[in-house]
Amino acid sequence: MARDANSISEYLDTLRGRMPVEDIRARLAPKPSERKGIRPFTDIRRENVERTWDQLEESASTPSNARPALLDPETRRDLDAYSGNIETLIGTAKVPMGIAGPVRVNGLNAQGEYHVPLATCEAALVASYHRGMRAATAAGGVTAAVLTRGVMRSPGFAFANEISAGLFVDWVLRNRDMLFAAAQATTRHGRLTELSPHIENEVVFLLCRYDTADASGQNMCTIATDALCNAIISHCPVQPEHWFVEANFSSDKKASALAFLSGRGRKTTASVVLEEAIVKRHLRTSIDRMDKYVRMSSLGGIVSGTMGVQGHYANALAAIFIATGQDAACVAECAVGVTRLERSEGSMRFSVTLPNLLVGTVGGGTGTPTARAALDILGLYGAGNADAFAEVVAATCLAGELSIIAALSSGQFTGAHHKLARTRISGEAQ
Amino acid sequence: MARDANSISEYLDTLRGRMPVEDIRARLAPKPSERKGIRPFTDIRRENVERTWDQLEESASTPSNARPALLDPETRRDLDAYSGNIETLIGTAKVPMGIAGPVRVNGLNAQGEYHVPLATCEAALVASYHRGMRAATAAGGVTAAVLTRGVMRSPGFAFANEISAGLFVDWVLRNRDMLFAAAQATTRHGRLTELSPHIENEVVFLLCRYDTADASGQNMCTIATDALCNAIISHCPVQPEHWFVEANFSSDKKASALAFLSGRGRKTTASVVLEEAIVKRHLRTSIDRMDKYVRMSSLGGIVSGTMGVQGHYANALAAIFIATGQDAACVAECAVGVTRLERSEGSMRFSVTLPNLLVGTVGGGTGTPTARAALDILGLYGAGNADAFAEVVAATCLAGELSIIAALSSGQFTGAHHKLARTRISGEAQ
Amino acid sequence: MARDANSISEYLDTLRGRMPVEDIRARLAPKPSERKGIRPFTDIRRENVERTWDQLEESASTPSNARPALLDPETRRDLDAYSGNIETLIGTAKVPMGIAGPVRVNGLNAQGEYHVPLATCEAALVASYHRGMRAATAAGGVTAAVLTRGVMRSPGFAFANEISAGLFVDWVLRNRDMLFAAAQATTRHGRLTELSPHIENEVVFLLCRYDTADASGQNMCTIATDALCNAIISHCPVQPEHWFVEANFSSDKKASALAFLSGRGRKTTASVVLEEAIVKRHLRTSIDRMDKYVRMSSLGGIVSGTMGVQGHYANALAAIFIATGQDAACVAECAVGVTRLERSEGSMRFSVTLPNLLVGTVGGGTGTPTARAALDILGLYGAGNADAFAEVVAATCLAGELSIIAALSSGQFTGAHHKLARTRISGEAQ
Amino acid sequence: MARDANSISEYLDTLRGRMPVEDIRARLAPKPSERKGIRPFTDIRRENVERTWDQLEESASTPSNARPALLDPETRRDLDAYSGNIETLIGTAKVPMGIAGPVRVNGLNAQGEYHVPLATCEAALVASYHRGMRAATAAGGVTAAVLTRGVMRSPGFAFANEISAGLFVDWVLRNRDMLFAAAQATTRHGRLTELSPHIENEVVFLLCRYDTADASGQNMCTIATDALCNAIISHCPVQPEHWFVEANFSSDKKASALAFLSGRGRKTTASVVLEEAIVKRHLRTSIDRMDKYVRMSSLGGIVSGTMGVQGHYANALAAIFIATGQDAACVAECAVGVTRLERSEGSMRFSVTLPNLLVGTVGGGTGTPTARAALDILGLYGAGNADAFAEVVAATCLAGELSIIAALSSGQFTGAHHKLARTRISGEAQ
Repeated sequence: MARDANSISEYLDTLRGRMPVEDIRARLAPKPSERKGIRPFTDIRRENVERTWDQLEESASTPSNARPALLDPETRRDLDAYSGNIETLIGTAKVPMGIAGPVRVNGLNAQGEYHVPLATCEAALVASYHRGMRAATAAGGVTAAVLTRGVMRSPGFAFANEISAGLFVDWVLRNRDMLFAAAQATTRHGRLTELSPHIENEVVFLLCRYDTADASGQNMCTIATDALCNAIISHCPVQPEHWFVEANFSSDKKASALAFLSGRGRKTTASVVLEEAIVKRHLRTSIDRMDKYVRMSSLGGIVSGTMGVQGHYANALAAIFIATGQDAACVAECAVGVTRLERSEGSMRFSVTLPNLLVGTVGGGTGTPTARAALDILGLYGAGNADAFAEVVAATCLAGELSIIAALSSGQFTGAHHKLARTRISGEAQ
Repeated sequence: MARDANSISEYLDTLRGRMPVEDIRARLAPKPSERKGIRPFTDIRRENVERTWDQLEESASTPSNARPALLDPETRRDLDAYSGNIETLIGTAKVPMGIAGPVRVNGLNAQGEYHVPLATCEAALVASYHRGMRAATAAGGVTAAVLTRGVMRSPGFAFANEISAGLFVDWVLRNRDMLFAAAQATTRHGRLTELSPHIENEVVFLLCRYDTADASGQNMCTIATDALCNAIISHCPVQPEHWFVEANFSSDKKASALAFLSGRGRKTTASVVLEEAIVKRHLRTSIDRMDKYVRMSSLGGIVSGTMGVQGHYANALAAIFIATGQDAACVAECAVGVTRLERSEGSMRFSVTLPNLLVGTVGGGTGTPTARAALDILGLYGAGNADAFAEVVAATCLAGELSIIAALSSGQFTGAHHKLARTRISGEAQ
Repeated sequence: MARDANSISEYLDTLRGRMPVEDIRARLAPKPSERKGIRPFTDIRRENVERTWDQLEESASTPSNARPALLDPETRRDLDAYSGNIETLIGTAKVPMGIAGPVRVNGLNAQGEYHVPLATCEAALVASYHRGMRAATAAGGVTAAVLTRGVMRSPGFAFANEISAGLFVDWVLRNRDMLFAAAQATTRHGRLTELSPHIENEVVFLLCRYDTADASGQNMCTIATDALCNAIISHCPVQPEHWFVEANFSSDKKASALAFLSGRGRKTTASVVLEEAIVKRHLRTSIDRMDKYVRMSSLGGIVSGTMGVQGHYANALAAIFIATGQDAACVAECAVGVTRLERSEGSMRFSVTLPNLLVGTVGGGTGTPTARAALDILGLYGAGNADAFAEVVAATCLAGELSIIAALSSGQFTGAHHKLARTRISGEAQ
Repeated sequence: MARDANSISEYLDTLRGRMPVEDIRARLAPKPSERKGIRPFTDIRRENVERTWDQLEESASTPSNARPALLDPETRRDLDAYSGNIETLIGTAKVPMGIAGPVRVNGLNAQGEYHVPLATCEAALVASYHRGMRAATAAGGVTAAVLTRGVMRSPGFAFANEISAGLFVDWVLRNRDMLFAAAQATTRHGRLTELSPHIENEVVFLLCRYDTADASGQNMCTIATDALCNAIISHCPVQPEHWFVEANFSSDKKASALAFLSGRGRKTTASVVLEEAIVKRHLRTSIDRMDKYVRMSSLGGIVSGTMGVQGHYANALAAIFIATGQDAACVAECAVGVTRLERSEGSMRFSVTLPNLLVGTVGGGTGTPTARAALDILGLYGAGNADAFAEVVAATCLAGELSIIAALSSGQFTGAHHKLARTRISGEAQ
């Protein structure tokens, strides 16, 4: 678009004002390293941590108050708790956590009223979710259901030509049982549920889909898929020229049309029916205004080219994920879906569907001290809870959509942010 | 796809095994609330926090060790530091933080070797970024450049028909100077740089783009856009039937084709040239294998329908964002772009371009204690540093792409995850 | 983008120069009809056709030479041949048809050398395809394979809530056999191969996929799906609030991520291996130049946000479709896919994959006189030929990609168009 | 998806049933050419045409009635008329043309009632458009407006690194006037209106946008862009390593997010307000039913991942394009946009927006005999008419959306197709 033109011109003008072109060239050119690297470690022991800090503090830029901030007494005490979750640990990031709700969830799995922990630095966010939860709860709660489960891995195999690719696929399909067994032998909790080939001329992607039970499960899927691939390579008479255990077809850590359509993680849906009186009392707007907003914002989503049409699932997801030890990078793939408002006489039906909810209540970061505490507040730590947790997350997304749409439709949006961030910001908006 | 069929069948079978249909209906039906809500608060004072805990602990599900885990002595001491960043605070989430690098960055803005703090619970992640950084640094470092800047807001206006929409646009374009002034009056740091109408029959979206200086700046943009809209409403002879300060066309908190093409936040690019020897020594693979991998994974991205083609920018972004107080929800919009490998005789040129990098070094969560410490380790806290910070983030993404591609191309991927998560996991993969 | 701003300003300025705002308003306002409509007819008899012309010629704008141009003696003679293909016929559009090839196709189904008829008004197009075909044939011909078949219809059903939607899906899946039988009863040639539900909260889309044998088959699918839906409505205890036989989920007449991923029509792939000498002799460029071009053009496709990455499949598709009586509107859905070039020592492997090729050799327009003649030239008219025809179409797309990439990589592109359109255009380029 | 699995298995089973694997290998392998190619020609003279037929008829597959069908007396007579539009001509494809309307268009440019020629072999299509036109005309006609104009070309330039790319962009932006002049020197009718760089690390795409006046104009744009590039190469001190006049960023002949957002060709919008009585009388359904349909079909479009949300613009576009000598391949890029229904008390506002309408009333195929006759029936042949023509095309798309939505919402859809194709099809649906 035209954007680059103006912005780049400006940039180059600024730079030219600051320094001659030769200096720019010099800045961007490769240079030998001058600084000794820190020594990485996987063994989270106190001496390793402190030694790393000693090294970091040799550098001028690291102030002396950084170490105590990151490596506070509790973190020092709990070092063991982070073992197997990270390497070269230097401490912990502290992200403020608020509590919203409770939100009543009437789910296939979740049943009851949940106080939802949200870790975020964004002013107004917790307050906004709280408001949406109160409105939904006043209306009898959020109906929610996990519809499907399945995390994907996608090894890729390249052949000399399409004939070999076809014969390979033929062999794989005829040997499904053996391959399923090979994958299954690696895991007690996970379960391979689908093995589908996708052919692009001489390249074959195998889509392996797993039910990962209560774990988020990406690691489990990788190991099982590796075993499956090794079984292929050991037995298949049609050998690939080269192959990789993951060939970027599984949508790991990124939104994709494939995952949006076929689901990655848990496909979860939630809804609530709100009457005019509740909208007025709790959300300070009207069904008519909210309907008008959703009509325009759906158009905005369609025209700007988003995957699905929704407002800000990412806010709920990031805040819950950080609070409960989920993989926050998965926000990139989970934050897609469809928010809808269907109006009828005197009430509206409001719903969200998230096809790609990757969450777990065991494994990953769920066992770190504060993640466990946050899951405990929800009553959803440990095995048997991941479906219920997914429904609570979807209900939280729904509450956030309700609240932001109410704020935007009634004109409170700017004010709320202005007011709630006021303590931090003085003089002017940041 | 066929997926829903099997999964839904399974689900319904499971449920039917567990309970009769009437019970399912009962579970999903609205129910009156039984639990008293906690009282939300914006004033982060000790008594409010403790009172909230008292309420939470009344519920059976919250164990007594949750409060000390989240509301540890340091958090209690630092309550003030979170004021204006959150409401109804109950403590802090502790996310383990590792350190990777240093990575040498030869940027238009960043110059030097940076130790990059990464907050994550994903085993192998810090080790993997560290490896990529060491390889890039051994090659003379990562060349990096911010190309454009601009955060968007997009109010929407609905009219009776396309004639009014057209006359409205005409008025807006003729009154640009007045409207720019109205927006500008709200902020000293930000700067409105573009005001473009987009017409969909009787609906007009105005794309407002801001240079937000060293702040991530979404709040700044909202307030300025609100002022701009109020100026329109006060003076324009063609009044909309209804309008909203943000109509979901700006791509806030979500990936979109519009943002991918025109940039949201900082468009940042980075590259490195690696010789075969360095690839072999630091990455334990060959240029040929990496090239083969990138050819297949690009195809995987294209066929699965991702925005751009890349591996796992989301991992770097989430880990740095949590460490440095950025808005982690923005991972949803930032984690798109293009990773490329261009091979030549004896070496390869490896690059990443991220069109949507939303980061700041002032405001938002950057002032919370551990975020500030993490930015201090980088030497990039405060005004004047956001462009350099963006370049370091892009260099980190590049290091992560290098390392994961090397691991996948050489077959180390599964093993690395298996080994590094071993401390945590016993018995089998999670 | 910034575009609308400038263009709209210009437009409004022009209009303002031409007329006052009130006149614009008047132009755009609704007005009563003044002209008597022509009488539509489905019965393609001479008197109906001539009567329609009499009516058209009453209007001043229709010149007297229009009737003989459109309703020429052959068309008059062949009126019967168009019966059932069109209503209110006034004649025939004559599109110039050239012949390219022969192209050797080594297909699962097509075997031999085919002269391909191309109906187009675009100068240089036939010549360009001819060149690509000659290069591919010199290399031993194009390997081609139909991989999968399946045309989709997607009825949609709306329920009061997700519980009913779930129970509906449950019933549908338990009654598959009956529903398959209901669909199957409507057609001897077609075959329902998949029935998959897709749930969006309270809405259920059923994806019905058919093998339509040698017909393009959309009509066949509609009738079978209608029967399937009626069977559901007659027997299912969970009745929808409303439902539609096609709910815009099937991607009929439009490109979609769903169709791109799962195939609509015939998924067809084709490839050729070219040696340097052939590239030089037939395409007047080098493998190195072509490789450089494909690398840059793939990036262009990725960054501009196309579905798949290819050059101009649409040109081949439109020209063959018009020549052979296919549905030219399907170009909108068929013209997506992936073109790739894989280089090796002294040669390159060049391939195309089209996931959505909708073609037929019976039914539709294939029986109109010139369509039949064109299919006869190919030797592919009638039952048993559609798979072979799809492979010839894919081979033609491949030839076109080869030729345009060669032209663009060698700098001949502009010249070729300039020269071949020269007869038509004098003075300057159109 | 799971699809490939079943379909490929089936395919391979069928093949295995038919022949052994070695035969499949043999079929797909390259083979020497046995058939002498026809001699291509650009000079459309009778002897060339007849000689080509003589060659074609040497092949067994071409029946003796093919020549007279394609090379009828009128085509023989009019050979000159196709000169410059095609090479190696063997005759003309005859596509049946019906007439629909008139449709009243109240456009910025089009004013009056238009009989619209539609060339198609799809039964029910002309009848359906006719019905929609009559409904819209009864309501006072379709309001329509061209909003913006601009056909794109996008040369691409590769550099050694991002520094050179940046300096190149800097030079281009500083030499805009000279470059505009170079482009402008090639054309009297066209006008370069935008020159925007898009940087992807070391690659630069230049987006060149042209107002092509009354021509569709792709050829004009290519020639002007070639001149612009040559001016760059002659004068710019920063030379690219390689460059191409079109690098697949312009979306020529394919739908793209870039074109959908920024417009390619004419961005055109149209609307009509229909009262309940007209919906009932002309469309035999109700506003309520149509609204319910549009709500569900919009969801279908969003979830299946289409560009924009619409029903079947492609049908109108293909039929008009073939009738009037437009480039039918452009259906691939033009058939995207947004169809909307906004309901109010007793009426509904129905609209379409097509961002990418590529049409012309001079040049291309518009001068071939039947294309000219079709444009003459519209009164829109020749210079000064392209904007009006675009508005008539958009109005026709709107009529088609109205009619198909009415048919689907009232359950007439299947019946209409069944009945109107009945003459052609006996025994069962095709």
